[in-house]
Amino acid sequence: MSHHVYKQIELTGTSPDSLEDAIQTAVTRAGKTLRNLRWFNVTDIRGYIEGGQVAHWQVSLKLGFTLDDIDTTDEADTALLEPS
Amino acid sequence: MSHHVYKQIELTGTSPDSLEDAIQTAVTRAGKTLRNLRWFNVTDIRGYIEGGQVAHWQVSLKLGFTLDDIDTTDEADTALLEPS
Amino acid sequence: MSHHVYKQIELTGTSPDSLEDAIQTAVTRAGKTLRNLRWFNVTDIRGYIEGGQVAHWQVSLKLGFTLDDIDTTDEADTALLEPS
Amino acid sequence: MSHHVYKQIELTGTSPDSLEDAIQTAVTRAGKTLRNLRWFNVTDIRGYIEGGQVAHWQVSLKLGFTLDDIDTTDEADTALLEPS
Amino acid sequence: MSHHVYKQIELTGTSPDSLEDAIQTAVTRAGKTLRNLRWFNVTDIRGYIEGGQVAHWQVSLKLGFTLDDIDTTDEADTALLEPS
Amino acid sequence: MSHHVYKQIELTGTSPDSLEDAIQTAVTRAGKTLRNLRWFNVTDIRGYIEGGQVAHWQVSLKLGFTLDDIDTTDEADTALLEPS
Amino acid sequence: MSHHVYKQIELTGTSPDSLEDAIQTAVTRAGKTLRNLRWFNVTDIRGYIEGGQVAHWQVSLKLGFTLDDIDTTDEADTALLEPS
Amino acid sequence: MSHHVYKQIELTGTSPDSLEDAIQTAVTRAGKTLRNLRWFNVTDIRGYIEGGQVAHWQVSLKLGFTLDDIDTTDEADTALLEPS
Amino acid sequence: MSHHVYKQIELTGTSPDSLEDAIQTAVTRAGKTLRNLRWFNVTDIRGYIEGGQVAHWQVSLKLGFTLDDIDTTDEADTALLEPS
Amino acid sequence: MSHHVYKQIELTGTSPDSLEDAIQTAVTRAGKTLRNLRWFNVTDIRGYIEGGQVAHWQVSLKLGFTLDDIDTTDEADTALLEPS
Amino acid sequence: MSHHVYKQIELTGTSPDSLEDAIQTAVTRAGKTLRNLRWFNVTDIRGYIEGGQVAHWQVSLKLGFTLDDIDTTDEADTALLEPS
Amino acid sequence: MSHHVYKQIELTGTSPDSLEDAIQTAVTRAGKTLRNLRWFNVTDIRGYIEGGQVAHWQVSLKLGFTLDDIDTTDEADTALLEPS
Repeated sequence: MSHHVYKQIELTGTSPDSLEDAIQTAVTRAGKTLRNLRWFNVTDIRGYIEGGQVAHWQVSLKLGFTLDDIDTTDEADTALLEPS
Repeated sequence: MSHHVYKQIELTGTSPDSLEDAIQTAVTRAGKTLRNLRWFNVTDIRGYIEGGQVAHWQVSLKLGFTLDDIDTTDEADTALLEPS
Repeated sequence: MSHHVYKQIELTGTSPDSLEDAIQTAVTRAGKTLRNLRWFNVTDIRGYIEGGQVAHWQVSLKLGFTLDDIDTTDEADTALLEPS
Repeated sequence: MSHHVYKQIELTGTSPDSLEDAIQTAVTRAGKTLRNLRWFNVTDIRGYIEGGQVAHWQVSLKLGFTLDDIDTTDEADTALLEPS
Repeated sequence: MSHHVYKQIELTGTSPDSLEDAIQTAVTRAGKTLRNLRWFNVTDIRGYIEGGQVAHWQVSLKLGFTLDDIDTTDEADTALLEPS
Repeated sequence: MSHHVYKQIELTGTSPDSLEDAIQTAVTRAGKTLRNLRWFNVTDIRGYIEGGQVAHWQVSLKLGFTLDDIDTTDEADTALLEPS
Repeated sequence: MSHHVYKQIELTGTSPDSLEDAIQTAVTRAGKTLRNLRWFNVTDIRGYIEGGQVAHWQVSLKLGFTLDDIDTTDEADTALLEPS
Repeated sequence: MSHHVYKQIELTGTSPDSLEDAIQTAVTRAGKTLRNLRWFNVTDIRGYIEGGQVAHWQVSLKLGFTLDDIDTTDEADTALLEPS
Repeated sequence: MSHHVYKQIELTGTSPDSLEDAIQTAVTRAGKTLRNLRWFNVTDIRGYIEGGQVAHWQVSLKLGFTLDDIDTTDEADTALLEPS
Repeated sequence: MSHHVYKQIELTGTSPDSLEDAIQTAVTRAGKTLRNLRWFNVTDIRGYIEGGQVAHWQVSLKLGFTLDDIDTTDEADTALLEPS
Repeated sequence: MSHHVYKQIELTGTSPDSLEDAIQTAVTRAGKTLRNLRWFNVTDIRGYIEGGQVAHWQVSLKLGFTLDDIDTTDEADTALLEPS
Repeated sequence: MSHHVYKQIELTGTSPDSLEDAIQTAVTRAGKTLRNLRWFNVTDIRGYIEGGQVAHWQVSLKLGFTLDDIDTTDEADTALLEPS
């Protein structure tokens, strides 16, 4: 309990609707393969303009999740830390 | 009129609904004890995730308010400036 | 096609309603005189407080637009690049 | 439960012994008058040198504490938010 | 009244006398072609040295001015937004 | 003597005259209710423009002061904070 | 089409020849296992010196790639998002 | 030998004891699945407070490891680069 | 000679060949309508990837040029800008 | 003429009078042993407070000077580059 | 007494033991040839990893020392300011 | 072996040809009087424009070199650390 490790990855979510929706889009996508998502912090807010209108809101964020209380089967472990 | 002094404090407001609501939450709370709130500027945007959804939007902001045209009663003055 | 030039200007849009609306306000205004707006990125988020409420959301952003495929008439060119 | 407000203040703690002790010194001092201290984040690490030795470790940190679930007596309220 | 747009340009003013004079030099020059100048914020302070003396104080600043309540004649509009 | 705690607050002082005067304005105001002011460091330099002239110089600064009850011999007190 | 998610990873490429080659080295390596690489942005430029000459150019960069239009087979999905 | 590629991931290690232990906790966890760890650099120092004491030291760091001299079996390659 | 004003604009130049060519592309484009270009400083280095190769190098830069009517003797002109 | 090298050192000048005087103090001191001082840029503005007044203005700056057109006698060369 | 000049140099100290020891290592080394060391501030914290363990703690710091009250013999003066 | 000290100095190299050549120019110059150069990291990329062309590429960089394994003769020691 006293020694935890978290990992942070950086995603960019987009949405035609709002900043909140762009963030939730990234969180939802990450949640498909990552358990234990805990927090995010925004690192960049951008957007794409078409015809004088904001067409896509683009929010980059760091997503933090716990690494320490996972199952220690090789498979699960690989899924969470290995890569990238 | 020519010599003003403003003070800035840093709060973090949260909301389950939106970034704007998280900011207004902090502004409202500050307004309970501080008169003369003038402006804010955002310093950090974070959030807490539960079950793959953004559960709380957390916005840190600096809040600026005027110090110079306050009543000079000791009590009020203390309320505004005194250190913690 | 292989050599492009983009220019970035910095505007601040405001709105009594939301952060998104403040951004769109700036984009709309820029679109009145600038063709080829392509993207924006937020540089600052502030607001003005009146009566304990956020009265105006103020978002500063850099607006990027293409310079390379413009008409080369002096007038248009001046409109886009000339310094102030 | 859904709308929280935290306040952050900035202190500098010093110690002749270690960085951790300098931080704890600031936390301990803050705890004398502030309830509900929750977290800190370091903003600056400095030190004072005497006779070629580090005489004092100086760590500046932001201290965050909850404002929302306090008693609403004027006294308590003043103690937590008012001050600087 | 509720939707405003401001533009920021970046100038560097110089002076042989002082930092304040260098800033005012830039503000004065901008005022020749731009109406509605509202604020500045300093982004860089430099200087040129000759013979061991500071020969020129050089201050870079962003200058903000209103775009929204201008006359909509093409000429005025060009003067305010077009440029740089 | 070996464990000190300092607090930093952020003020903005203004003046129609100079940057130094704007800073001193903030320092003077803080001194009305805070003992043991020790140092400041500038975080932002801005100004308000009226009629093409700088009408107000606005300097934001962090003000540091002692919170602990150290021995008040001039020598010891000076030896610890001075630097930096 | 309206909701996209991108991921950014951070690599450092090196080359004995040039900054461009160091960047391309990282991009080439990433392309071996990652489809849909879209952009990079440089975060750090360093180098290693041997015998008074720059022996290796070292460029750190963030690499962005699309996550949203991938095949949804478990295998492919794991390869792109899972890890680290 | 002349073209190397390194990857950096961002972890947060915690410890009830010290900053060094928090860092080593993250390094140890990463070492379970990543070979060739080479260096780290600290990006954030935070902590959690309970009962007026620092209960957990939290240090975020970027961890760099070599990608280029790995075995090119699919399995190993996937373990190091693929993901995220 | 003693009071100069420079203006800085921000452009992004691209090139399929090199970072230097991307910068020169922006400088050349600016030179079509701006006299007195004096210096640039790079603010961002990015690139677009196609088929695992860097297809476009994108360099954002601030371009500085003189706004004032200074004496155009080569000597004086050089003496003022050179540095920095 | 086509290959120049400049060196930058960082000094802090102080003055009881003004920011400009603090800067000139540092420049004057550097000029005692360094030829070819060319420019400075300010990195920090601080001050020391005594009795509620700014007692010392403290300005940190980087000082740039030319290394390339020096006499190549060992002695002069050592004086300019060697150390630190 | 009223006009002081300090110089700052940047060193990196390493230690197999702790962050504090790495800092003290740099301070001790500087003290061999520099009198009047006054303060340091940390600019970077890194480390080298061997066999999954932190083998060296590496702390970069700026070291400040007084230049103004030194003996004005050429030799001493050279030792303190000249170089670099 | 276990306690090392490195020093970093900041130079600006220029070249009419390329960014790499500007960096090598600074490294070469430093190598004339400094042994044990180890690495550099770029802090600023600028250039001087003449006649619409980039006339000089100017790259500022920090140069790191070892201090610990030098000969301890006074002369050599002075040459490496003393100055500035």
